[in-house]
Amino acid sequence: MESKNREIPDIIIARMPWYLRALSVLREKGETTNSKELGAFLGYSAAQIRKDLSQFGEFGKQGTGYNIDFLTQQISGILNIDRSWEMVLVGCGHIGHAILNYPGFTANGFSVAAAFDTNPNLIGQKINNEIIIRDICEIESFLQERNISIAMLTVPAGAAQEIAEKLVACGIKGILTYAPMILNLPKNIRVEYLDPVTSLQHITYYM
Amino acid sequence: MESKNREIPDIIIARMPWYLRALSVLREKGETTNSKELGAFLGYSAAQIRKDLSQFGEFGKQGTGYNIDFLTQQISGILNIDRSWEMVLVGCGHIGHAILNYPGFTANGFSVAAAFDTNPNLIGQKINNEIIIRDICEIESFLQERNISIAMLTVPAGAAQEIAEKLVACGIKGILTYAPMILNLPKNIRVEYLDPVTSLQHITYYM
Repeated sequence: MESKNREIPDIIIARMPWYLRALSVLREKGETTNSKELGAFLGYSAAQIRKDLSQFGEFGKQGTGYNIDFLTQQISGILNIDRSWEMVLVGCGHIGHAILNYPGFTANGFSVAAAFDTNPNLIGQKINNEIIIRDICEIESFLQERNISIAMLTVPAGAAQEIAEKLVACGIKGILTYAPMILNLPKNIRVEYLDPVTSLQHITYYM
Repeated sequence: MESKNREIPDIIIARMPWYLRALSVLREKGETTNSKELGAFLGYSAAQIRKDLSQFGEFGKQGTGYNIDFLTQQISGILNIDRSWEMVLVGCGHIGHAILNYPGFTANGFSVAAAFDTNPNLIGQKINNEIIIRDICEIESFLQERNISIAMLTVPAGAAQEIAEKLVACGIKGILTYAPMILNLPKNIRVEYLDPVTSLQHITYYM
């Protein structure tokens, strides 16, 4: 395994979680796969698959393909998901509620340690019989006590920048934001955007 | 404006909705912008901005920058969002409900014409005082009557492929899917994935 000092293009990193999805489906059919089968599944050429994976080292043998469990384990290690991650959620409106009810996080090793909002009508409510919505004022002291580096942001666009800056000041290093707003944060903070309108506007180009 | 026959890299198309977001914020401060300001806002170099925009033609003049309204209008035209789009929503669980309550779609010219589910407890319910959840069995006849080419898919992973194929058979050309599953569809169907776990797994690489 090469060190992360050599920078791998982010577009290849972005594809790695989808490799994991493909591998988990292909594993139901057998123990090995190859670049052609993976490519067909993911919509890339076999050459692209081999090129992607060669960025990280040697995972398969010429002619015998990839052992699915081994490749899954290696990619999980690359993505640092061979451990569990706690997150905080800020914003408990419709999207926040949907997230707190989504079983896919825990199934993949991600858990919401605490949820925050500014709305007094929401603060104190229990979601999913488990998570109590806390006052956003408490987030600083909460994060000081816990080693949490990831936040999910589901606040209105107008509040996103201010809250993101507060999160970064509290030690958050990665933000998954649903707010339709570009966040202006230090370069070392990793931000991923999930915005349905942006995705739809990408689709309509091809319509 | 060049024709779309010359293929523009999809990664550049994917950035165009974010240009619109940036322009709408920059418009509050003035009538013109330039590649340096746009780049600072979007996190790209000025050279990248100029290279991106040059794919579509000549939008600015050397030294005077870009007129924001003109550039907004041109990018809207490129993305085909200088018109409104009706969509269908399939799957009315937590995420489906959150989507039906999200004001950002109509604000950007997208509207949900009808919502469908298989759950008899949901069928007939009215969401947002407006949209009645219909039986998925009715989707074929509904789409035959309407000229709708985009669907949002918010069903469990196990149901996504089957429903996506049904949608394509009914004339849907673009799908925005929240289901954490790679859809295997004809090449001419445009699929965009919004999956929080995939995005989180991308973030953790950098943690």
